[in-house]
Amino acid sequence: MSFQADFKPELELIDTYFHSVFRYQNSCPLPELERFWQSLTYSFFSDGKRFRPLLAVLTAKALGRPPELTLTLAAAVELIHTYSLIHDDLPCMDNDDLRRGKPTNHKVFGEAGALLAGDGLLTMAFGVLAQAPSPNAATAVALLSTAAGPRGMVGGQALDIESAQPGETLLTEIHQRKTGALIRVSVEAAAVLCGADAREIDALRTYGEHLGMAFQLADDLQDHDPEKPEKISFTSLLGITETLKRLERSSQAALDSLVSFPDAWGLRRMVQLNRERV
Amino acid sequence: MSFQADFKPELELIDTYFHSVFRYQNSCPLPELERFWQSLTYSFFSDGKRFRPLLAVLTAKALGRPPELTLTLAAAVELIHTYSLIHDDLPCMDNDDLRRGKPTNHKVFGEAGALLAGDGLLTMAFGVLAQAPSPNAATAVALLSTAAGPRGMVGGQALDIESAQPGETLLTEIHQRKTGALIRVSVEAAAVLCGADAREIDALRTYGEHLGMAFQLADDLQDHDPEKPEKISFTSLLGITETLKRLERSSQAALDSLVSFPDAWGLRRMVQLNRERV
Repeated sequence: MSFQADFKPELELIDTYFHSVFRYQNSCPLPELERFWQSLTYSFFSDGKRFRPLLAVLTAKALGRPPELTLTLAAAVELIHTYSLIHDDLPCMDNDDLRRGKPTNHKVFGEAGALLAGDGLLTMAFGVLAQAPSPNAATAVALLSTAAGPRGMVGGQALDIESAQPGETLLTEIHQRKTGALIRVSVEAAAVLCGADAREIDALRTYGEHLGMAFQLADDLQDHDPEKPEKISFTSLLGITETLKRLERSSQAALDSLVSFPDAWGLRRMVQLNRERV
Repeated sequence: MSFQADFKPELELIDTYFHSVFRYQNSCPLPELERFWQSLTYSFFSDGKRFRPLLAVLTAKALGRPPELTLTLAAAVELIHTYSLIHDDLPCMDNDDLRRGKPTNHKVFGEAGALLAGDGLLTMAFGVLAQAPSPNAATAVALLSTAAGPRGMVGGQALDIESAQPGETLLTEIHQRKTGALIRVSVEAAAVLCGADAREIDALRTYGEHLGMAFQLADDLQDHDPEKPEKISFTSLLGITETLKRLERSSQAALDSLVSFPDAWGLRRMVQLNRERV
């Protein structure tokens, strides 16, 4: 799934802003902290697809508002996504050596370094978002915290660890929290920052929920490996045919949520690109 | 250092609010997440002195404003303080088995559990603060993020790890970030939430900076152990007499910052209580 062909200007806008965030944060560098800053940027600038940041920016476009309104959110959701990957890869979690074809953060900077890099990126996220050029910045921070915290992503990770053999209901709950919540809030909080009305926010939140589910279903279909039946996923629980059917259904539901947004070409295209990767 | 004798009503107000935060956050409990919520409350409600929350509430009093204005900040700084202790105690950091006389979080809930508990508390902090009943909530979030993030506390921890034999300048930098920044922001962001003017915020920030330094100096004097000369601290670098002299000086400077606040009895008393513990 690459977004370069469809969203080159948006990705350039995002990338330029992301670099400015780190330049500002590290504006008075201490030589002793150089390695720490390297550990932050090593993972943040590592060929991520910028799926969640694009959703934030494309939501502004769908609402006919300048994408610049949502850049702080774009950075915040990517900072949180990156921290979660760093902490997930740690030896006490998934103990992974490789991420996006490079050694994982702790393989390069050590476990303590990776722990602090994750903590640092997570903490930065809220400070960046709080400076959004919108009277609703504090509301966006509250939404992001709920989506990423114990009731959202972190809770989903805890649920994943505690549930040895989840059934369909619990697996859905795990994914809605672990993956879905951050995808949904990338759209929902963008709408809030853009000053959307309650009806618009509601429709875009629904879009985000369905897209989050479609994203996880496509992930499971892509990762499906009949040689590893012990890994619980939608494909191992429901089979490939039923998982594909649900991917269709979630994708269509996401598209249906956008009927009243004539400028939502970008958000529609994101649904297609996710659908096409399986 | 106990605050019960001087600040019983304030501590009760704080405690009641803290319990309401966790009741609200865990309002739709899943049985599979019970252990995760236990891991959060295990460390958060574990006989902490509530030094930082008291500073927030007493700043409101010093400004003649209702302490309720600063309760979200009181919770946020304690959530961040608690997360930092959980992550600090992990095997890859200080590898401590005991904290406040109880087994550390990872000794009870495992390393992955403690990692997620810390991540969860940190994420909650910003969501709670974003809901402060003040038009300046977003500004307070930005201040807290800077104080706790790579330019503040997390940066101080990274600096501590990277600096094997710090001299006095570097040790001061480490402590200003690692300990001082969160103490200072407990006062500074409280003033911002209370709608203080620029002159008041400036004076209270200065108070917070000096108190943060006095706190660290008192900590080092309390922990001084001539049998462990390898641990770098102000006492090992400067000797006990000079460290005591600096504690006097920082305490006095903190008190001097409060001259224009007739209602700052509580903030003054905090300086004395810190001074008296050595």
